[in-house]
Amino acid sequence: MSDLRDWAEQADLTDPLAWVRERFDLDDGVVYLDGNSLGALPRAVPARVAEVISHQWGRLRIRSWSESGWWDAPQRIGDRIAPLVGARPGHVVVGDSTSVNVFRAVVSALRMTPGRTEVLVDATTFPTDGYITESAARMTGARVRAVRPEDVPAELGPDTALVLLNHVDYRTGRLWDMGALTGAVHSAGARVLWDLSHSGGALPVELDRHRVDFAVGCTYKYLNGGPGAPAYLYVRPDLLPELDQPLTGWCSHADPFGMEPRYRPAPGIARARAGTPEIISLLTLDAALDAWDGVDIAQVRQKSLALTEFFVRCVDELVPGRVRSVTPADESRGSQVSLSCVDAETVMKELIARGVVGDYRPPDILRFGFTPLYTRHVDALRAAEVLAEVLS
Amino acid sequence: MSDLRDWAEQADLTDPLAWVRERFDLDDGVVYLDGNSLGALPRAVPARVAEVISHQWGRLRIRSWSESGWWDAPQRIGDRIAPLVGARPGHVVVGDSTSVNVFRAVVSALRMTPGRTEVLVDATTFPTDGYITESAARMTGARVRAVRPEDVPAELGPDTALVLLNHVDYRTGRLWDMGALTGAVHSAGARVLWDLSHSGGALPVELDRHRVDFAVGCTYKYLNGGPGAPAYLYVRPDLLPELDQPLTGWCSHADPFGMEPRYRPAPGIARARAGTPEIISLLTLDAALDAWDGVDIAQVRQKSLALTEFFVRCVDELVPGRVRSVTPADESRGSQVSLSCVDAETVMKELIARGVVGDYRPPDILRFGFTPLYTRHVDALRAAEVLAEVLS
Repeated sequence: MSDLRDWAEQADLTDPLAWVRERFDLDDGVVYLDGNSLGALPRAVPARVAEVISHQWGRLRIRSWSESGWWDAPQRIGDRIAPLVGARPGHVVVGDSTSVNVFRAVVSALRMTPGRTEVLVDATTFPTDGYITESAARMTGARVRAVRPEDVPAELGPDTALVLLNHVDYRTGRLWDMGALTGAVHSAGARVLWDLSHSGGALPVELDRHRVDFAVGCTYKYLNGGPGAPAYLYVRPDLLPELDQPLTGWCSHADPFGMEPRYRPAPGIARARAGTPEIISLLTLDAALDAWDGVDIAQVRQKSLALTEFFVRCVDELVPGRVRSVTPADESRGSQVSLSCVDAETVMKELIARGVVGDYRPPDILRFGFTPLYTRHVDALRAAEVLAEVLS
Repeated sequence: MSDLRDWAEQADLTDPLAWVRERFDLDDGVVYLDGNSLGALPRAVPARVAEVISHQWGRLRIRSWSESGWWDAPQRIGDRIAPLVGARPGHVVVGDSTSVNVFRAVVSALRMTPGRTEVLVDATTFPTDGYITESAARMTGARVRAVRPEDVPAELGPDTALVLLNHVDYRTGRLWDMGALTGAVHSAGARVLWDLSHSGGALPVELDRHRVDFAVGCTYKYLNGGPGAPAYLYVRPDLLPELDQPLTGWCSHADPFGMEPRYRPAPGIARARAGTPEIISLLTLDAALDAWDGVDIAQVRQKSLALTEFFVRCVDELVPGRVRSVTPADESRGSQVSLSCVDAETVMKELIARGVVGDYRPPDILRFGFTPLYTRHVDALRAAEVLAEVLS
C-alpha cells in the first residue's frame, strides 16, 4: 500500500499536466471519476457566462448576433475543437445533440451512396446511435444490421452504404483502430461515421489523416462543456460540397437573412447547421474550451494511459478477486476502466456515498473515467482503496 | 403632440401590468421594440444561472441529473408553458430548435395520414418552416404546395395530409383565426401544425379548445428565454399515443437508462424528446419564465392591442405620409406593427443609432415589436417621434 502511495505521489509530482488541474473547480473530499459522463466545471466558465447573460444579452440584446459573434459561434467553436480531433478549420460545426447529428450524418451518407441500402451499426454502441440509425434508414429505404466492430471487415459487402462505429466503447472502454477500420470500409466502397463521444478530448483523434467521412461527438464529457452542451459534426473536406443534409433550417441557408422562399445550402460547414443555436449553452462550451489552451493532446494520452494502468494495478493489489476489468490491458483502451462486479449498481451507490464518483452501466459494470486534465494518481489510488472498503 | 404624451402617460399610470416591467433589466436610454426577435433579460436570470453553473454543475456534477431535476426539465418546463398556449400539463415538451421541431411534427403528421401525400405550407411563413417541410416531405414521399392562409379552405383536398400555418405572420403581424382554419383543415380530414413563434406569450392561444393537432413555438421572443432558447412542441392529447417521430434519441425511450438494443417510445410527451438536452439554455429559460408568475394573459392581450393601436396613432400624427402600416388595424394582429417604408434598411439602422431598436425585414419593412410585459406607451410615442426625426 505505501508502495502504491509513493508511486502515486511521485507520478503526480512529475506530471507535466499537473498545472491544468487548477483550471477546474474541484472538491478535495471527492474523487470525481465520472468526467466521461459529465466533465467537471472549468473555473473560467461562471464569469464568462455571467458576462454573456448580463452584457451580451442584457445590454446589447439583439445586436449581439453580430457584435458579440453569436451568429458565427457554431463554426468558430467548431474550429476550436478541430485540432483536438485532427481536422482543419472549416470542417467541424457545433450544434444540436449527438443524436440529432447522427441522424443528419446517416441520412447524408445514405444520399451519397445511391444504390447501396445497408448500414452496419456497431452492436456495442451507446443505444441512441442505433435507434437513430434505424429511424434514418427507415426514412431512406435502407436497412440496418448490428455487427461487432471486429467483424466489420468480414461483414462488409457490395450493398454496404455506411458503417457507424464508436471510437471507444462506452461500456468496456475498448478503443478501436480508426485507421484500419476506416480503410476496410473504404476498400468496400462504403462510408464511415465515427462517434467520438468517448475519445474526443481523451486521446489524439486523426480524422483528416484517416480520411474519415463523417464524425460526431459530444462536448460534455472530456471537453467539459457543461450538461447537455451541444455536439459537433465533422464532414470530410472533399465531401462537404455534396453534403445534402435533412435538417435544412434557416441557419444552413446560403443567405439566411435573405428570407428566400427556396432553400439553397450554405457553401461551407454552415450547411450542417439547422435552427437558431442555443447560445447560452454554446458560449458556456466556448468558455470551457479555454481549459485546453496550451495543452498537448499527446501528453493527455500519455497521462491517460498511466492513470488507467495505475488504477488497474491498485485494484489488482487492493481488491483481489472481487472484480474483473473488462477494459483492454494493452493500449487499445480509452480513458476509462470498467470493472465487472456482482451487485454493481449497489456497489456504485456505496462508492458515491463515500465520495468516489463513477457510474454504473447495466448489467454489471462499475465505470471509472480518468479525465487527464484534472485527475491525479492519488485519486486513482483513493478510488481503489474505497472500493476495497466497500467490497470487504 | 402634447395630447399624445398626456395620453401615453395616463395609459401607463393605469396599466394593470406596469409592475411587471420591474422584472426586466432595461436601459432608460433605449426603446427596445425587438422583443419579438429576442426578448429582454429578466432580472431573475443571472443569479439563477450562476447557481445552476456553480452549484448544480460545479458541486453536484453528475448527481444533478436526478437531484437538480435536469432529467425531467424538458417536460417540467413544457408544463410551465402549457397554460400560456391553452394546453394541459403533459402535452408540451421543450427542447431542440423550432426548425428541428417542425421536422419532427411534419414527419409525425405525415405518418398519421397514410395515403395522403400533400402538405400545404403557409406561403407567408418564416422561411425555415418551408425549407424544413420540403425536406420532411422529400423523405416521406409527400409534396409541398405553398398557399396563402386565406386560401387554405379552398385549397384543401382529399390528398391533403397536413397544413402548416403561422399564427402570426412574422412580416406583417397579421393574426390568423386558429379556430376557423383548424376547423376547415379538420373538415377535409387533414391535420394542422401551427407555428406559435410570434403569438406564444403575446396573446391567449387555445390549442386544446380548437383541437389543434400539433404546434411548435420559440421561447426567445415573447417568452424571453434568452438567445436561441430551446423551442417547444405540443401534441394533441389523443394523438400522443400514436406519435411516431423520427428523432428517436435515447431521451425519448421508454427506459432510457436500460440501454436496450431496441427502441421503445416513452409513453408520454417524453417520446418527443431526442438527445441530451442543453441544460444551461433550458434552465435559463426556466428562470426567465418566472417573469410570468401572476400575469394574466388576457391582460397581456389587452395591453398589446392598446400599445400597437397607440403606436399607429402616433405614427399617423407624427410621420404622415412617409410610411404605411401593413399590419391589420382591426384585432386580427399580433403584438407588432410593421411599416412599409422606402429605404427601410437604412432607416432602421438610423433608428437603432438613435436608441430605438426594431428590425428590418426584406424588402421594405420596419418591424416594431411591443412586448406587453415591459413596453410602455411612452416608449411607443418615443419610437414614433424618433422615426419622424429620421424621416424628416
